[in-house]
Amino acid sequence: MSKKLTKREVDYSKWYNELVVKADLAENSSVRGCMVIKPYGYAIWEKMQSQLDKMFKETGHQNAYFPLFVPKSLFEAEEKNAEGFAKECAVVTHYRLKNDENNSGKLIVDENAKLEEELIVRPTSEAIIWNTYKNWIQSYRDLPILINQWANVVRWEMRTRLFLRTAEFLWQEGHTAHSTKDEALAEAELMNNIYADFAQDFMGIPVVKGLKSESERFAGAEETYCIEALMQDGKALQAGTSHFLGQNFAKAFDVKFANKEGKLDHVWATSWGVSTRLMGALIMTHSDDNGLILPPKLAPIQVVIIPIYKSQEQLEKISEKIKPVLSELRNKNISVLFDKRDTHKPGFKFNEHEIKGVPIRIAIGPKDLENNTIEIFRRDKMLKENIPFEKIYEKIDFLISDIQEYIFNKAQKFTIENTRVANSYDEFKSLIKNEGGFVSAHWDGSSETEEKIKKETKATIRCIPAETVGDKGFCMVTNKPSSQRVLFAKAY
Amino acid sequence: MSKKLTKREVDYSKWYNELVVKADLAENSSVRGCMVIKPYGYAIWEKMQSQLDKMFKETGHQNAYFPLFVPKSLFEAEEKNAEGFAKECAVVTHYRLKNDENNSGKLIVDENAKLEEELIVRPTSEAIIWNTYKNWIQSYRDLPILINQWANVVRWEMRTRLFLRTAEFLWQEGHTAHSTKDEALAEAELMNNIYADFAQDFMGIPVVKGLKSESERFAGAEETYCIEALMQDGKALQAGTSHFLGQNFAKAFDVKFANKEGKLDHVWATSWGVSTRLMGALIMTHSDDNGLILPPKLAPIQVVIIPIYKSQEQLEKISEKIKPVLSELRNKNISVLFDKRDTHKPGFKFNEHEIKGVPIRIAIGPKDLENNTIEIFRRDKMLKENIPFEKIYEKIDFLISDIQEYIFNKAQKFTIENTRVANSYDEFKSLIKNEGGFVSAHWDGSSETEEKIKKETKATIRCIPAETVGDKGFCMVTNKPSSQRVLFAKAY
Repeated sequence: MSKKLTKREVDYSKWYNELVVKADLAENSSVRGCMVIKPYGYAIWEKMQSQLDKMFKETGHQNAYFPLFVPKSLFEAEEKNAEGFAKECAVVTHYRLKNDENNSGKLIVDENAKLEEELIVRPTSEAIIWNTYKNWIQSYRDLPILINQWANVVRWEMRTRLFLRTAEFLWQEGHTAHSTKDEALAEAELMNNIYADFAQDFMGIPVVKGLKSESERFAGAEETYCIEALMQDGKALQAGTSHFLGQNFAKAFDVKFANKEGKLDHVWATSWGVSTRLMGALIMTHSDDNGLILPPKLAPIQVVIIPIYKSQEQLEKISEKIKPVLSELRNKNISVLFDKRDTHKPGFKFNEHEIKGVPIRIAIGPKDLENNTIEIFRRDKMLKENIPFEKIYEKIDFLISDIQEYIFNKAQKFTIENTRVANSYDEFKSLIKNEGGFVSAHWDGSSETEEKIKKETKATIRCIPAETVGDKGFCMVTNKPSSQRVLFAKAY
Repeated sequence: MSKKLTKREVDYSKWYNELVVKADLAENSSVRGCMVIKPYGYAIWEKMQSQLDKMFKETGHQNAYFPLFVPKSLFEAEEKNAEGFAKECAVVTHYRLKNDENNSGKLIVDENAKLEEELIVRPTSEAIIWNTYKNWIQSYRDLPILINQWANVVRWEMRTRLFLRTAEFLWQEGHTAHSTKDEALAEAELMNNIYADFAQDFMGIPVVKGLKSESERFAGAEETYCIEALMQDGKALQAGTSHFLGQNFAKAFDVKFANKEGKLDHVWATSWGVSTRLMGALIMTHSDDNGLILPPKLAPIQVVIIPIYKSQEQLEKISEKIKPVLSELRNKNISVLFDKRDTHKPGFKFNEHEIKGVPIRIAIGPKDLENNTIEIFRRDKMLKENIPFEKIYEKIDFLISDIQEYIFNKAQKFTIENTRVANSYDEFKSLIKNEGGFVSAHWDGSSETEEKIKKETKATIRCIPAETVGDKGFCMVTNKPSSQRVLFAKAY
């Protein structure tokens, strides 16, 4: 704990990797690309899950659970989707181990237990779910189906980073079925809006909402809505996506319904998901060189109280004074930790809770008892002050909402300041190279131009924002007509 | 929905399979042995999860997440554990698919993407977790570690049944590390007691608590605590287990800690789990030939209100009358559904909610409006009565607690009546064959005798109950001394 973090300006990437470990959020495991999410990191994820789950249920969705495995023949049914994921699939081929006769105590794969058909560990569940929906849908009365699943998925990524890109990750995936195209489109947009609200109101992360370009779409989607956020190093991070799948999966799995007139039609689909990648966004958006900064709404510990004492008697007096505070805060649903560990000194505790991003720290010692005061510290601004003891509740209430607001505003200011307009390709290249951030520019809508820009600058189209619709112009590269400005950035 | 269930006395097993599907709890998937848990079934599981999670956290446990995959070399490190699970492991051998050149649109395993070391899909996580704990534990100050994980696991069972035995299932697995044997033993027993409390107080399932015999222990455990429940067909079901693992995993993974005196010792371990198998126990304990019966504490819908109407005007009047009831019940945290679907008739709805085990059904029609009454029906006793409208809250409060109590008492009476004492092996064989249920008998403590009994009667030792400790006698088979009676049964 005592060792300092690498500073962001020295090596942003190293700072991130160190922070994830030092803040006790996650670590690499002995399985290539798979992480261990430690209790403190998992507690933040649980808070995120619980809020998202509430928002899904309030909009009529129910949870269910579908198999981890997808038989190869189902996996390949929707060709674009299969093509998109085929290169990163973990494949189960056998269902038994046996003793290695040449090597006592060791096990080997039993070749007699080879599966007739290989099973893919789900990289996403459209295939297995649409093969199930087939049996659930006959008529318009069976629609819509509004289901979400909390699950683990596996994508065999070659370069992995804790939370941002791991071979196994946790996520939720919504899969809905509708009787009309408009209803499915509205659903996809609704869920993208829910993601945006969650990111902004709970995570304190400002996001841009819009559509993906064709080449950045989810494999098998006809339209992908997304929310994009800007990290402190000027790179963009895709924080959530919601896909309008058209009738692609319904056609691949032959899912038809009879409408009110008795006519058969293929069902319309959406899918949408956010993952533990959001943890990466949360960490990178707010944190500083001293460690994690957490929005109070997602902090597992919102307030930590540290007693400063030399004798057992002093500790007892402090404990007595603090006891009613603990129960009052818990009554108010504020999570509080009274850190009276005798194995660690106050300085160590200060440092630990600072690096773990506890929003509010209170210290109380013998002098505070005498003067009826406490020292209160807000992690976001690294500011401390002494206040009268009786102001404690008022101050905590204020800080909980003020920190939430402050870190959002700070991130929003950063995003606005780092969103720049380019009116020529030269200007664009210079901005991407020297400034980073989002660059808003005109593009002719073709994949060729997009590819050329990507090749030459490493910037991709992050989002075709809803807010620039109608802002016509000419492509900065080809000078062909452009229907609106789009947002480019280098991205995670 | 209209088709009746097979009666329990005709074919209990068929009744169960039909009920799971007709009550919309789960169904088989296209992946061998893996189930789809449907929204209604999943909603019950979520209620169970939420209560268990609360009980775990109240006893100091935290959640975390460990990888889905276990490298083979870690998997085989604890030999008994490895031996116990080797025959039912899904094995990942490749990480990529490629296009089949001979078969356009089809994919095949890419042999160039063979893993150097095979990965086992976790059947349980001791190996991967203890390999992680190794890095977390140096000193007694790092102990205890009290961690739980909610996860999916895979055991390649040959004969599967929805909820009771599936290749993939959902569960929680607690994994704790301690500095002393006594502390670990106390933890294992504590968690078994929590399982028993949960089963009895929330699921309404009476259980026997005790230990497993050596041959029925978890692979790698030195002692397995268990809770066993008796199903309506007289077969026992293991509902939860909690293992004292001794120092086996610490030794296999070389996990040592320095005690207060600076002396190194191996760490002591426990693990404990319950799974979606509990859903099977819940269904089989309470339900009847009309469908599911649910304890109100776990019912996703506690009260359903069905309007009986002919005209839209009547429906509106009923809706108006019911509106304040809905909000009042929701304020009281009672989950209520006003089922005003116009696509289905009341008879259909009555039947559907009956088979889905909604504890309380209220019907209200034009005559009730006139008389200011409602019809209220309790699912457990299949009893309905008319009551004055103003008694509605009082009656619902009463029924919610009375149904919870009644179904527990009924199941407890059944368990007591079906627990019989055998004083000779002949009597034992006759009881097992003709009566079923638990049979309490003396046993000499040897695996040979246990095996002989199992072979000859198909009954196994379900539990060495805490309550018969000290009740000495002589083995019914060998006449050797027995330290206490143990409970035998045929089991799921």
